[in-house]
Amino acid sequence: MINKLVKKIEDLQAPIVAGLDPMLNYVPDHIKEKAFAEYGETLEGAGEAIWQFNKGIVDAVCDLIPAVKPQIAMYEQFGIPGLQAFKKTVDYCKEKDLVVIGDIKRGDIGSTSGAYATAHVGQVQVGSNKFRAFDEDFVTVNPYLGTDGVKPFIEVCKEEKKGIFVLVKTSNPSSGEFQDRLADGKPLYEIVGKMVDEWGQSHMGDSYSYVGAVVGATYPEIGKVLRQLMPKTYILVPGYGAQGGKGSDLVHYFNKDGLGAIVNSSRGIIAAYKQDKYARFGAEAYADASRQAVLDMKEDLLGALAGK
Amino acid sequence: MINKLVKKIEDLQAPIVAGLDPMLNYVPDHIKEKAFAEYGETLEGAGEAIWQFNKGIVDAVCDLIPAVKPQIAMYEQFGIPGLQAFKKTVDYCKEKDLVVIGDIKRGDIGSTSGAYATAHVGQVQVGSNKFRAFDEDFVTVNPYLGTDGVKPFIEVCKEEKKGIFVLVKTSNPSSGEFQDRLADGKPLYEIVGKMVDEWGQSHMGDSYSYVGAVVGATYPEIGKVLRQLMPKTYILVPGYGAQGGKGSDLVHYFNKDGLGAIVNSSRGIIAAYKQDKYARFGAEAYADASRQAVLDMKEDLLGALAGK
Repeated sequence: MINKLVKKIEDLQAPIVAGLDPMLNYVPDHIKEKAFAEYGETLEGAGEAIWQFNKGIVDAVCDLIPAVKPQIAMYEQFGIPGLQAFKKTVDYCKEKDLVVIGDIKRGDIGSTSGAYATAHVGQVQVGSNKFRAFDEDFVTVNPYLGTDGVKPFIEVCKEEKKGIFVLVKTSNPSSGEFQDRLADGKPLYEIVGKMVDEWGQSHMGDSYSYVGAVVGATYPEIGKVLRQLMPKTYILVPGYGAQGGKGSDLVHYFNKDGLGAIVNSSRGIIAAYKQDKYARFGAEAYADASRQAVLDMKEDLLGALAGK
Repeated sequence: MINKLVKKIEDLQAPIVAGLDPMLNYVPDHIKEKAFAEYGETLEGAGEAIWQFNKGIVDAVCDLIPAVKPQIAMYEQFGIPGLQAFKKTVDYCKEKDLVVIGDIKRGDIGSTSGAYATAHVGQVQVGSNKFRAFDEDFVTVNPYLGTDGVKPFIEVCKEEKKGIFVLVKTSNPSSGEFQDRLADGKPLYEIVGKMVDEWGQSHMGDSYSYVGAVVGATYPEIGKVLRQLMPKTYILVPGYGAQGGKGSDLVHYFNKDGLGAIVNSSRGIIAAYKQDKYARFGAEAYADASRQAVLDMKEDLLGALAGK
């Protein structure tokens, strides 16, 4: 799956992942009204609204980008109907041949991490049958519990030829409180990064490992250091656009081959029609605004990489 | 809710939480056969089996213990039907007046952490209606992303008079890889513990704060240090029993008032009938074996505390 991701990035010339993190207030009124007319102002109505919203965006951008990253929290808040919308979104994106990165940030110990891995990238046994509960291609994993927490994901990923992205340095303002602490003279994110590199050596694709890292766009100097520390690691970069990161900040997240990083934008793509820049599209054509935002992001990133 | 938890612990003289982490192979054949006869060997069948299994245990122990801790990973692996079983379990335990600690170990940034908090301890707005998606009383939270990731949970908990337990030092063998790293001369778990103490000061109950900590039973010396560092923090202690912790190791997790800690046992209670010690009960009476295991655990803990 890492090979597929790399090939799609090369073919489309687009190191871009669209974050499908729908807030209900991003969903245009015409979609909400239709969903609520059918299901009422209920969790089912909310689930239907975000699913229809997602479908419009996926249809509009699926020929431009290699991957999507649905953030499960945004679905989980609507309970079972929200998680049904998450599953429909994952399945639909896979039909459209998009690589699906489940942004789930799970992490636990031993058999419990194994159960999360089974849920999202593996198969569960029930009697004589096997089922895939959610079936993303990659998931994000929290490393705070150490190797015990991460290894069960890697074991399942080896069987399934799937992968993970481990949180190393997150994009938020307070990420440094623990991640930047100096331990043995090195910030914790470097220690975690080094482990990601090691874990990756046990599960390599053709040119990159199946064990990626999350490094926020908002800390470009740290991105540069981590790029060198983890040469075979794909870096998933959140924080572009709405959180402040821009293309020129991100060139050092890439390797000399022009690969090695994939940049996420969520609000900047899915709620583009709410920005002044794309207001001309209007709420009805929200998906066309998302398409234009992807094209602009691609130009920004490729321009920055060309001038590297 | 922390006041209710403390009162129940005092009234029942039982600082015990039963971990409802059902593996399908813990479920006795008679329950599985019935569930599969009705729903087939499907995710629905698995969901029904673990729900019926849980119900039996809850009925057998609910008068002895103050709280349960369902581990959501064990349900998530069965997809939507598994999560429906999680929800049924949470709702049923609340009907039985048990305090429900959702072991979800979520953690993200800003609005995303807010969405997780909404999902599990808050209310989500859909049009003019509000809904509770899952509705636990407490949840466990991963602190790796810093204050940005934890504060949204505390904000929701303040409104709802609910609480969290923050992972500080986990019970697994590799927990030290990152958590024990010395930063500014102190192990990371102490730095996180200090933050938990601070976060808790903003959301206090009568005698303890609504912001608890997870500290594994398998590291008693660390438990002693953290107890002193976080005097108003309730400590949730996993790792008793199956993972190796025993009552005499745990006396220093408690304060002089005999309070301040609640000890979790999962396999040791819910799969008690599979142990030689309780084999006499047999699979049909698995819930009676669980009840006996709770009584024995209570005796072990109270004995250790009396001899403190």
